[in-house]
Formats: sequence, C-alpha cells, structure tokens
Amino acid sequence: MENFNFCSPTEFVFGKERENDCGAYVKKYGGSKVLIHYGSGSVVRSGLLDRVKKSLEAEQIPYVELGGVQPNPRDGKVYEGIEICRKEQIDFILSVGGGSCIDSAKAIAVGVPYEGDFWDFYSGKAEFQTAVPVGVVLTIAAAGSEGSGDSVITKEEGMVKRGAGGDAMRPRFSILNPELTCTLPPYQTACGATDIMAHVFERYFTNTKEVEITDRLCEAVLLTMVKETPRVIENPNNYEARANIMWAGMVAHNGVVGVGRSQDWNSHGIEHELSGLYDCAHGAGLAVIMPSWMEYVVDHDVMRFAQVATRVWGCEMNFQNPKETALQGIRKFREFLVSIGMPINFEQLGAKEEDIPTLVKNFGVGDGMTGGFQPLSADDVAAIYKIAVNATV
Amino acid sequence: MENFNFCSPTEFVFGKERENDCGAYVKKYGGSKVLIHYGSGSVVRSGLLDRVKKSLEAEQIPYVELGGVQPNPRDGKVYEGIEICRKEQIDFILSVGGGSCIDSAKAIAVGVPYEGDFWDFYSGKAEFQTAVPVGVVLTIAAAGSEGSGDSVITKEEGMVKRGAGGDAMRPRFSILNPELTCTLPPYQTACGATDIMAHVFERYFTNTKEVEITDRLCEAVLLTMVKETPRVIENPNNYEARANIMWAGMVAHNGVVGVGRSQDWNSHGIEHELSGLYDCAHGAGLAVIMPSWMEYVVDHDVMRFAQVATRVWGCEMNFQNPKETALQGIRKFREFLVSIGMPINFEQLGAKEEDIPTLVKNFGVGDGMTGGFQPLSADDVAAIYKIAVNATV
Repeated sequence: MENFNFCSPTEFVFGKERENDCGAYVKKYGGSKVLIHYGSGSVVRSGLLDRVKKSLEAEQIPYVELGGVQPNPRDGKVYEGIEICRKEQIDFILSVGGGSCIDSAKAIAVGVPYEGDFWDFYSGKAEFQTAVPVGVVLTIAAAGSEGSGDSVITKEEGMVKRGAGGDAMRPRFSILNPELTCTLPPYQTACGATDIMAHVFERYFTNTKEVEITDRLCEAVLLTMVKETPRVIENPNNYEARANIMWAGMVAHNGVVGVGRSQDWNSHGIEHELSGLYDCAHGAGLAVIMPSWMEYVVDHDVMRFAQVATRVWGCEMNFQNPKETALQGIRKFREFLVSIGMPINFEQLGAKEEDIPTLVKNFGVGDGMTGGFQPLSADDVAAIYKIAVNATV
Repeated sequence: MENFNFCSPTEFVFGKERENDCGAYVKKYGGSKVLIHYGSGSVVRSGLLDRVKKSLEAEQIPYVELGGVQPNPRDGKVYEGIEICRKEQIDFILSVGGGSCIDSAKAIAVGVPYEGDFWDFYSGKAEFQTAVPVGVVLTIAAAGSEGSGDSVITKEEGMVKRGAGGDAMRPRFSILNPELTCTLPPYQTACGATDIMAHVFERYFTNTKEVEITDRLCEAVLLTMVKETPRVIENPNNYEARANIMWAGMVAHNGVVGVGRSQDWNSHGIEHELSGLYDCAHGAGLAVIMPSWMEYVVDHDVMRFAQVATRVWGCEMNFQNPKETALQGIRKFREFLVSIGMPINFEQLGAKEEDIPTLVKNFGVGDGMTGGFQPLSADDVAAIYKIAVNATV
C-alpha cells in the first residue's frame, strides 16, 4: 500500500424527507445568504425547490436563485454564478440537483475568492486553496460529487471537458434522500449506475500490489450495484434498492475505497471527449468506453481481470487459462450494461467513427502517455475508440 | 435502510514514517500547547516518543507529558489528565499509543471543559458537546478509536467498564504508520484482529432489511482480516499485511460500514465484564464471547448466519438445511480464532465459571432486555457465559 492522506469531512444526511432540514444545515455550517443552484425544471416541477426554499425561509436565511445548469455543466454558467455571488455577497452555495449541478456549484465556490479566471484551476494553471462553502441536496445517484473534492466543467469554446480537485471543494453537508431518485427515468438511472461502477473500476485497476482491503471494498460496491441496479430498472419506486445505490454512489467516489493505490482514470478521460463532443450522458459514454478499454488492456494484468471476473461477475476461474476467465468477466460486464438499457457501441451512443481523429486530438495526450494502469499513447486511445465502434455482446 | 447522519471528519495520515510530521498536524489543527498522552514504556523504548517530541519541537510547540495509561484505561488517569490540562492551559491532546490511550485522551478531552464529573458522560447522566481537540499516533490496529467518536473507560471502584460517544470526540487527525505495529507480539496482534472483526460483526447482525451495501462493506473488512491476519502472525514484519489490517481497523469502526441499520453490541457489553473483572485483553475476551453469543442467537436469523458463512467463511450453502451452514460458519470462526492463538473458552482466558453471577450482575441489565439484534435478558447473558465456559472447536 502506498502512503496517503484521506479526509472526508462532509456530513451526510441520509434518508426520507431529509431535504426539509436543509435550512438548518446551512445555518449549522455558517451560511447567512445562499445561492440556490439548480439545473432543469424537474426540481421546480417536483416541488423540491419549493421545499428547499421553505426550509431556508424557516431559518430566515435569504437566498438568490441560479438555475439552468446543463448536463456536462458549462463555464458560462459558472461565470454567471461567480458574478452573482460577488454582487450579492453570498456566503453559502446550495446545489439542488445531480452531479452536474454540484460540479458547477464547486466551480463557482472556488472562483468567487479567486482574482484570476476560475478556468485556471481546470486548465492546471493554478491550484485553489479556499472556497465558498457548498451544501448539496442530491437528486441522482451517479457522480459521487456529493462526497468528493472533484468537479468537471466543459468549456463552451471547443467543448473541452476538464476536471479540478482539492479538499476545499468537498461539500460541508450532503442531503441524500433516495425518494428523490425514484422519479428518474430508467435510462438516467442506468447512466448513474454505470458511472458509479466506473468510479470503482478506475480505482480497482491498479499497479499497486497487496491492496486487499481496498480491493474488497471496491468489490463490495460493485456487487451491490450488480444486485440493486436491475431492481430499480424493474421497479423505479423500490426505495430500498434506491437507498443502497445512493450510499454505494457516495462510497464509490469519496476516496475511501481507493486510497493507497495507483488509479487509472483513462476511461473517464477517453469518455469525456465523447460527452464533450456529442453532449451524451457521461454514464452512457462510459458504458461504451470502459469495457472497450478493458479489452484493450487486459494483457497488462490478466490475473486482476480474472479476480474481478470471479469475485464480482461470478465466473468460474479457469486455472488453465486465466485469460478466458478475464475475458468472460468483461463480456459479463457488457451483458449487464445491455440488460440495464445502456449503449455499448458508437452507433447506439450516436457517435461517429469518422470523428475518432478529432476525439483523439481533443483528448490531448499528444506525443505523451497517460493513465495509471497501462499508460496509453494517442494511438492506443484511437484503438480503444475503434474497439468501441462495433462492440457487441 | 434507516435514516442516518454520518460524518467522519478525521484526517487520516497513513504510511511509513508519517509520525515524524505530527508536529505539523498539531499546528494545522490549531494546537499551541500539547499534552502527550501515552501508555506503557514501549513507546519510550522504541524511540517513538522521542520522534514525536522532536516533531513538536521542530514546530516550536511546547508540551507536557502524561504516560502510564493502562490497558482497559482507568478513570484515575483521566482525572489526572484533566487536572494537568486545566493547570497547564493545554489546547491539544496528542495520544501516542493504542485504543486505550486514545480512549483515555478522549475522556480527558471532554472532561476539561465540563464543570461536573467527566464520569457523568459514561454513566449516562450527561452528554458532552465540546472537547479539547485530540490527535492520534496509532501503535496498534484494533480498537478503531482513531476514527471513531467513542471511548470506553473503566471505573476503578468496582472495575465497571462504560462507554461514551459523540462526534466531538472524533480525532482531528490520526497518523497510521503500519511499521509501528510490526513490533507487536503475535498475541496482541491477534487480539487486535479479533477486536476489528468484532466491530464488524456487531454491525453485521442487524434486523434491518435490505442493507446490501453495508453488508458487502462489512464482508469486505472480514474477508481482508481472514486473509491478512494469519500472514502477520506468521511474519510480524509483513508491512503490506499490517497496512491492510490497519486500514481495515479504521474502516471497521468509523461508522461507514454500519450506517442505516440497527446494530447489536451485546457481545461487547458481555465481554466488557470479563476484561473489567479479570483485566484480560478486550480482543481475547471477544474471542471467547462472540462465537458463544452467535451460537446462542443463531435461530433469530439463520439466513443471515448462513450468508456470512458462505460469503466470508467459504462454506457451501446447504439449501436443504441452512442452519447447518450457519453453524458451520460459527465453527469456522472459532477455528480461525484458535489458529491465530486466541482463547475461546473461560479456562484459556483465565475466567471462572463461579463468577458468572457476578459478571451478569455487573452487566447490569436487571429485569430489562438489551441489544439490537436479539434482545437479551440477564438469564440469556448467563447462558452465553455458560456456553463460553467449555467452548471448543
């Protein structure tokens, strides 16, 4: 195991009707004037936004609203939010929505106290140290942003997607009510589930030896997703399955299952170019890319792939030919994705083979190599996109 | 899943040589005058205490020392610590040792700002809200106190062991260097491993339905302990196995694997009377009590016992007779305990059958019932002690 620091100070407030207490939590964490940040009209239509406002009003906390965050959140909305916060002297940002909304709120939060362009943090030009405190009312189990110190924003100019991270971005509190996810359509639910599993796989495929505890914790999350996801696809109102997925989504990405080991994150990077270019759902893009990446890198550590095949996908270990087991696991992953309604190739996603050179160029690895498991060159990335073009089960 | 709040704000600083930075972490968390709290002479002999002092001196942080914390830490030492802290205007307590030392530090920490007797918090007469901040340099993987908001203290008068808990007790930082545990004798190592597993079992045996994610996370810790413990018993200097156990010990008890479900904790209560009366190691007492408790309550939920038997102990499920599988799992647990050198009955522990009435009386359930899985009366507790008298494999 490698040396590491881990600190996840967010207070998680989990369960039915907990959003009605959000005003009290804003107060507890020192907020006296709030920016309510949200995305589409669904939080308006469902009445959630009204409940949130009522809760703030009950604590006599004034607020300003900024809605309209898009999936794959844009820098334009971030600039807008920073301006409002400065003008209105906002001291707390409350995100009501999913990962895009939280990521946008985090970007605003680090941008407000910074004199330069907030994009500096995403382009790697600067590192943030402070942020306006952020609180979360979560509406989809997916990104894990409710417990992480990470944010991904898309620059409208060129549709480039980049991430930034640091502990100052971790939410002060996150309210997780599984009921709020019961109205999600099956497709979005499955996209979220895929994202959660991908967060685990990015950590699972490591070159660090002897990491049994984090291996087992990763597998715990994956086994849960394999069991619970089909249950919510079948019955969207299955509260218990929704609850298990929601906590799994937090555990998958707050860091506890990935400490002390190298991680990969190439699949996320390769996917980001798809959702950047086509504006498809991040989870759907991952369903196309991640198994293709696995096929491409399987020889780098056949036994690790065989381990997940047996421990998570229930494959019988072929001791004479471990690679057969490894490949069987990848096949089972694709079958699982198909079973929950996910695309697994370019056509199903709405991506085009002829765009591969553009995707590779946007990925921006140039003449270098990237990734923590098997480092990939631009040619490797192109090859993975090519596998994804015609992937089937 | 039940509604819950979860917040584990401790910064974990994990890995080789990390104790040399403890001064910087004390400074980071606002300490300007420190009480170094430790137990036996081993931290002196090993040179650890000197390294800690040197690290504080490098940050120009003055300190006062209070050593001599005993296993099953006593109220006498707590009163002593409270007096020193008040007199010396200490604003940070640094525990250098294992669970006993941390628990004693936490008791001092909540006692200092309290006008009444700190024991009020342990006897249930009062609840604490504030505490002097605590930091930890951990020397044994066992109690999980480095990541928890709990503390257990023994009152010298009558040797009564009682616990107190609350988020104000959670350490600000905990330094976990697995190297420091390599000098531990096999017996203490095994006691620690048993304690870690017991922390999981207390959470695992629940009446809450549909808790797949926390079930799986519990099993992840157990599977890790089953793999790694024999490796450190065989080779105490196996850093990687020590590291996996150390992180497992934190995960087992900071709360993340037990949220949203009822928990039991009868085995801990029943054991506390053994270590209270005989001053034996807590882990050794648990090795005697926990499987005996399992045997006694197995009929309360045979399928849950069969689940752990198959998922953790590798038993084949007997679909015609699940109880056979359940009992096989309990037997495998006892065999495991014996294999790592733990006692499993009264004689091996140094306990006496004729003391059972005293133990039951000290346990103090009176005419009531206690425990979150199968509630137990005084007679039930006596019956469990009786099973433990002659337990074998």
